[in-house]
Amino acid sequence: MITHISPAGSMDLLSQLEVERLKKTASSDLYQLYRNCTLAVLNSGSHTDNSKELLDKHLSFDVSVMRRERGIKLELANPPEHAFVDGQIIKGIQEHLFSVLRDIVYVNMHLADNQRLNLTSSTHITNLVFGILRNAGALIPGADPNLIVCWGGHSINPTEYQYTREVGNELGLRELNICTGCGPGAMEGPMKGAAIGHAKQRYGNKRYIGLTEPSIIAAEPPNPIVNELIIMPDIEKRLEAFVRMAHGIIIFPGGPGTAEELLYILGIMMHPDNREQPLPIVLTGPKESEAYFRSIDEFVRATLGEEATKHYQIIIDDPAQAARIMKQAMPAVKEHRKSNGDAYSFNWSLKIEPEFQLPFDPTHENMAGLDLHLNQRAENLAAALRQAFSGIVAGNVKAEGIKEIEKKGPFIIDGDKALMTKMDKLLSDFVDQQRMKLPGSEYIPCYKIAD
Amino acid sequence: MITHISPAGSMDLLSQLEVERLKKTASSDLYQLYRNCTLAVLNSGSHTDNSKELLDKHLSFDVSVMRRERGIKLELANPPEHAFVDGQIIKGIQEHLFSVLRDIVYVNMHLADNQRLNLTSSTHITNLVFGILRNAGALIPGADPNLIVCWGGHSINPTEYQYTREVGNELGLRELNICTGCGPGAMEGPMKGAAIGHAKQRYGNKRYIGLTEPSIIAAEPPNPIVNELIIMPDIEKRLEAFVRMAHGIIIFPGGPGTAEELLYILGIMMHPDNREQPLPIVLTGPKESEAYFRSIDEFVRATLGEEATKHYQIIIDDPAQAARIMKQAMPAVKEHRKSNGDAYSFNWSLKIEPEFQLPFDPTHENMAGLDLHLNQRAENLAAALRQAFSGIVAGNVKAEGIKEIEKKGPFIIDGDKALMTKMDKLLSDFVDQQRMKLPGSEYIPCYKIAD
Amino acid sequence: MITHISPAGSMDLLSQLEVERLKKTASSDLYQLYRNCTLAVLNSGSHTDNSKELLDKHLSFDVSVMRRERGIKLELANPPEHAFVDGQIIKGIQEHLFSVLRDIVYVNMHLADNQRLNLTSSTHITNLVFGILRNAGALIPGADPNLIVCWGGHSINPTEYQYTREVGNELGLRELNICTGCGPGAMEGPMKGAAIGHAKQRYGNKRYIGLTEPSIIAAEPPNPIVNELIIMPDIEKRLEAFVRMAHGIIIFPGGPGTAEELLYILGIMMHPDNREQPLPIVLTGPKESEAYFRSIDEFVRATLGEEATKHYQIIIDDPAQAARIMKQAMPAVKEHRKSNGDAYSFNWSLKIEPEFQLPFDPTHENMAGLDLHLNQRAENLAAALRQAFSGIVAGNVKAEGIKEIEKKGPFIIDGDKALMTKMDKLLSDFVDQQRMKLPGSEYIPCYKIAD
Amino acid sequence: MITHISPAGSMDLLSQLEVERLKKTASSDLYQLYRNCTLAVLNSGSHTDNSKELLDKHLSFDVSVMRRERGIKLELANPPEHAFVDGQIIKGIQEHLFSVLRDIVYVNMHLADNQRLNLTSSTHITNLVFGILRNAGALIPGADPNLIVCWGGHSINPTEYQYTREVGNELGLRELNICTGCGPGAMEGPMKGAAIGHAKQRYGNKRYIGLTEPSIIAAEPPNPIVNELIIMPDIEKRLEAFVRMAHGIIIFPGGPGTAEELLYILGIMMHPDNREQPLPIVLTGPKESEAYFRSIDEFVRATLGEEATKHYQIIIDDPAQAARIMKQAMPAVKEHRKSNGDAYSFNWSLKIEPEFQLPFDPTHENMAGLDLHLNQRAENLAAALRQAFSGIVAGNVKAEGIKEIEKKGPFIIDGDKALMTKMDKLLSDFVDQQRMKLPGSEYIPCYKIAD
Repeated sequence: MITHISPAGSMDLLSQLEVERLKKTASSDLYQLYRNCTLAVLNSGSHTDNSKELLDKHLSFDVSVMRRERGIKLELANPPEHAFVDGQIIKGIQEHLFSVLRDIVYVNMHLADNQRLNLTSSTHITNLVFGILRNAGALIPGADPNLIVCWGGHSINPTEYQYTREVGNELGLRELNICTGCGPGAMEGPMKGAAIGHAKQRYGNKRYIGLTEPSIIAAEPPNPIVNELIIMPDIEKRLEAFVRMAHGIIIFPGGPGTAEELLYILGIMMHPDNREQPLPIVLTGPKESEAYFRSIDEFVRATLGEEATKHYQIIIDDPAQAARIMKQAMPAVKEHRKSNGDAYSFNWSLKIEPEFQLPFDPTHENMAGLDLHLNQRAENLAAALRQAFSGIVAGNVKAEGIKEIEKKGPFIIDGDKALMTKMDKLLSDFVDQQRMKLPGSEYIPCYKIAD
Repeated sequence: MITHISPAGSMDLLSQLEVERLKKTASSDLYQLYRNCTLAVLNSGSHTDNSKELLDKHLSFDVSVMRRERGIKLELANPPEHAFVDGQIIKGIQEHLFSVLRDIVYVNMHLADNQRLNLTSSTHITNLVFGILRNAGALIPGADPNLIVCWGGHSINPTEYQYTREVGNELGLRELNICTGCGPGAMEGPMKGAAIGHAKQRYGNKRYIGLTEPSIIAAEPPNPIVNELIIMPDIEKRLEAFVRMAHGIIIFPGGPGTAEELLYILGIMMHPDNREQPLPIVLTGPKESEAYFRSIDEFVRATLGEEATKHYQIIIDDPAQAARIMKQAMPAVKEHRKSNGDAYSFNWSLKIEPEFQLPFDPTHENMAGLDLHLNQRAENLAAALRQAFSGIVAGNVKAEGIKEIEKKGPFIIDGDKALMTKMDKLLSDFVDQQRMKLPGSEYIPCYKIAD
Repeated sequence: MITHISPAGSMDLLSQLEVERLKKTASSDLYQLYRNCTLAVLNSGSHTDNSKELLDKHLSFDVSVMRRERGIKLELANPPEHAFVDGQIIKGIQEHLFSVLRDIVYVNMHLADNQRLNLTSSTHITNLVFGILRNAGALIPGADPNLIVCWGGHSINPTEYQYTREVGNELGLRELNICTGCGPGAMEGPMKGAAIGHAKQRYGNKRYIGLTEPSIIAAEPPNPIVNELIIMPDIEKRLEAFVRMAHGIIIFPGGPGTAEELLYILGIMMHPDNREQPLPIVLTGPKESEAYFRSIDEFVRATLGEEATKHYQIIIDDPAQAARIMKQAMPAVKEHRKSNGDAYSFNWSLKIEPEFQLPFDPTHENMAGLDLHLNQRAENLAAALRQAFSGIVAGNVKAEGIKEIEKKGPFIIDGDKALMTKMDKLLSDFVDQQRMKLPGSEYIPCYKIAD
Repeated sequence: MITHISPAGSMDLLSQLEVERLKKTASSDLYQLYRNCTLAVLNSGSHTDNSKELLDKHLSFDVSVMRRERGIKLELANPPEHAFVDGQIIKGIQEHLFSVLRDIVYVNMHLADNQRLNLTSSTHITNLVFGILRNAGALIPGADPNLIVCWGGHSINPTEYQYTREVGNELGLRELNICTGCGPGAMEGPMKGAAIGHAKQRYGNKRYIGLTEPSIIAAEPPNPIVNELIIMPDIEKRLEAFVRMAHGIIIFPGGPGTAEELLYILGIMMHPDNREQPLPIVLTGPKESEAYFRSIDEFVRATLGEEATKHYQIIIDDPAQAARIMKQAMPAVKEHRKSNGDAYSFNWSLKIEPEFQLPFDPTHENMAGLDLHLNQRAENLAAALRQAFSGIVAGNVKAEGIKEIEKKGPFIIDGDKALMTKMDKLLSDFVDQQRMKLPGSEYIPCYKIAD
């Protein structure tokens, strides 16, 4: 089956050179990347978090970009059926298709292999993150601070999911916007809730931003509520995009991905240069999740120290209060940016050290080589722990990671005994609570704590 | 507590004479009507369907209209708290406040006591209905037919409620708009569902029209999703507004109000002049509601005859199909209007006989005097049955009706034995299935079938 | 030739009753009025100011309103050709056609023959004026004061015309909007100038309001720049609309119509109740027109007294200064309305005495009976003089007036010798300066000062 | 005097790297270019066409870009006064300031010194032109063909100027948009005329596109009516932008710049690959300019041959007809693009040979070295003549060119005697008719025809 899709949203015109690049050829990595992201977007609403499974199921799928008199068109061969209603593509998905095209073209053509840019330089990485977001229209200059980043697991239980919706509703009623990693679970609930809250307030500038990356998009496809989809090149730039766009952060229950996010933001907030940064961080969940947060809290305390816990509050079973804390912090965020001459839409002045920016490739070697010892600066330990959890996410749901594990067995994670015990405990809890993978599949750990 | 509310939506300017009329004075019936509707709108989301209870609970509530330099303002004394978030009124409710003002001023100033208009004339009634809808901005000339009226009970079970949401989602995905009577239950579910479907389609012209009337609004307050609220003067004009605006009708499970609506539309569709009218009517519900629809179907067959059943289809447990039938009928509706030179937004050519237009006052006398016999023209019987069910709705939830019943005991309904047996059966089913009133209160019948 | 015109602008839906009223029948005065206004609008840009001539030239012209599926349509028979470009009607004119329809329907259906309204009562007249403007969408609640009424002659010389454009440009650069009587000359120049000024400022809310009346519209058809055309029922309501909407007034050179307008506003501003009203009034023109303004100024001083001259300033040859005076007065206007709780868009609190509101019918008898004596209150004299000039305008350019003069000869104007001498002088000046009628036709006076 | 200007129009966010580049430093050529273009835009409406004079007059002018919390801001030191009204910058000029910033940043950062792009390759040049226009938002994918490029002199007489306004009015009435080189004269008249025509038609998508280049912008500053200003890097890319965006071309009387444009488009249209291109070209002017067009026509005939004249029509004194030809050609343009799958907004398939694309640097050596002989392919001769006239424009009004001439005396132009005679004749006519420079200054030729 062949279908032609017209542009919707932000991408309408490509140059001849740009179209040329995306052509399917034997050797084209770029085409493959583009095709897989496109397929992932079309799978919106599917119920698997195994990227490889998804890709294997649609081997005959194909996409090509064609220039046409009114702009460009996509030609899809054998697209998944449920992206269509009575033969018409759902507009939200149509927009996502062109967001994928936009970001892949942008990164590829304008910046990525640009020799002038030294992508090991902190400045240049930040400028690339800025460039991608600006090109996506995600940085809106006139707007007051109101963007709340919501983190949390893709695999959460129904009570937790309902709670994320309620928090979303309360955020929406307060005319706050939502940014998540754009998969299911805690990445979907706050958006759906906010959509209802926004509708009650007739709020027009509603933003449901999904920030994703090529290696995770297939496992966590954006739901069609996402009205701004952005594909960052890798997890490190994605995390940087989250924290430079955020005016506040809410963390729901989750698994290793959520732990990665928490460690990332704590590692940054503990940097002395960021002492004055007014970024509200709330960990919240229903009554039933209280124990979960207590154990996360303890892990942080035990690894990064008491100091680290000052950067967040834990709110149990009070959606309105979680939302109110965010709302009430906005004037301070605004004031701080104003007094620093910093953009409301992009937090240039947040200091992020290179160890949080440089891509970490979760090979068996790199995982084994992580410096996991307690006697180091808290920021450094946070960075190393962040990488460890990042590797586990890759082994769980990213196609590349799954293949590696299939080939070479689980990652070996080694370090301080004391630290290892704590990690083991936390990870076991994640397994027990079914936070590693969507329920229904048995979880086989992709890691092993070295004895 | 005193709050001032600025206009939102359609009402901004009132003349000195208009403001004068709404002043609170000892004798002012109009003020009382206006105040009660305003209070009802502020109770959005409250969980009672007893108008009297609601009004009694807020005796200290007061509203007054003040002319101000930028238009007008409402002054509210002691409004219900849950209409506010952190002290700010929810915008959806704010809009509703001014819809109430708009319609009451319009009906009162421009038409109602206009001596030139003879409101027993069918033409003049229809012109008044048109005038109210036009003044409310509800008739949009450029738009293609796409408005689906959804009828059904305010008291339905969770399975049924979820089903109405799914139908709404499927309607929304097909870019159809929703009009209901704007209370809870089957009047809310389709709107919430459609809101999600519309969001997925990035559908911009989304309409969630609530058509209500002063005597029912307190029992069935509009939820804040309603983005066009219209207050018709009485149930007969409200029903006429429904059917002249509808391009298709979906009927969910419900109680006597739903029966009233079904009998009303069948009585009209059976009129010979309406033979060519292409108005799709679907009765639909989840698997669990199949028996309900079978008994309704039998009641219609037994009272109005086989002929009557040709005007509707029953669809069980297939939300997509219900929505697809509506969508697929739109071209025929458009074609028919076009070939008749009739407005897409208002079905002038639908023939409605005076017995369906003239207000029926459900006093004990009028209820007892209903002509409930099988040996009459089906349209006439439909009209009489419609009035009977209308009276029961009044006795159940309307403030005036409840007071009458408290004073004089239940309505006596009399007629053919055969017919009475059928009615008794249907009404008993409604009671058993908790369709008369919201669950939680014991139902004490407001009627008695004469032996 | 038959053409069908779809609605543009504000009028889309008419009820069956409304359409009925506008049908052409032997006896229908309303149809005749409607037809003539429609014809006038289609003559936009024609170069005659003789209403009768225009109407006589297009005897075969006909218009009828038809209800259609997407609203209504106008059917025009034999419309003037220059309203069309390559067979398509110019959109500005199309909008005007529906403004005419809107206002005539409104006045006729809703208010005019409404028995409840007593149109000899000042309150009711003002409410009617308000109602017409509100229905036309001309009262915009959210907007700050910025509307400058420009008065002046339809027959002015090229230097004066260019000057009115320059003032318009300066007003436009200061984001002020324009309201005029919507004919040629001083009613067109400020709009054209402001259009350029607004374009330079990318000013989006640009308003070029034309306020006219059925008896003058044929002589002074609106130019297509007018983007809000409003047809008031008679000159008195038109003048009231001008002054209640105005936030400032600029008076350019003109003839008897301009004199009427000046006397009207001075009569009102001299009322003790209006002492606090901050309404800037500027008389302005090019260097060449200085003498003209000196003689107007003297006439005012000699008739209404020194006091009257305090209400206006004369600015010669300084367009930027004229505009600056208006701009700088806006905060005071706003402040005054605010402190009085009065609408920015409609000056309710301006006191207008009945002698300025009640229609003056310029018959020979009424003209002869005017109370033109110096020894009376200045406001009363202003009212009487206003009526005298109003009659002369009718005799010059209005169809009805021209017919009267043809039948019975010139109006006789009688009064104080001293006053008569002054009037004679002013009127002779108007004749000499070709301000009575467009150049090209010889002017035969429609009045005679009694000896 | 220091003023701060906030963004208007398309430019809001710059990255830290981009701001860095525009900093004023001793060595920064880019800053100098940016500063001069900014100054030129602020001189909108000034009456000189001598770039050097303008720049010399404002030596103390300075601009710097500052990042601010709501985006960026410009700091201007000692800007020309007439860009302001009562101390506020005119919005049209404010937008132009940010267009300058946008285009200079884009060309500099993204493409110009990008080593991957080989700017001697035809494909890469065209992709750069496309990239600049796309980045400027000038390529609107959904729009039907309706853009008319108007060429003609900056120094034309009042009759000609009035004529260009009338043509503009007729184009505007037909809802066609305008693109010019954005100086005074024939580049301003059509825009002002179209603005009135568009207003009459309530045409919303009005575009007055000014295409300029850094070396000419000071001599021909954009008037504030221009609502899309684009700065192309040089005359060759500017000409390519004109013809790839044009759906039709109108040529008014002009001097050497206009001759350059005519030769450019004829050279392209005569290419065999462009045989099927449906691009209407009309030369038009008032009755008084007939002789002018005859002599241009003869020059073309005598140099490029009879064949060349088939690509254009000459229309004398008929603005409506000139506009009608454009309007009537639009369906064919659309059809051709459609059947070729080419964009409506950018004519990819128009073949432009490298000799028309590669920058020609008008040094004395290059001017003397032009291959001006009749016995060569017409396209080649057109290219060489185009370069000759381009050099004369530079010597007349561009800062760089004027300096060269001051230093080394007039350019020497050499070639065939027959050809030289014709050129001499044409150029002398331009001098006599005051088409070389604005009237008021005596014209001293910047060229000499070799004997």
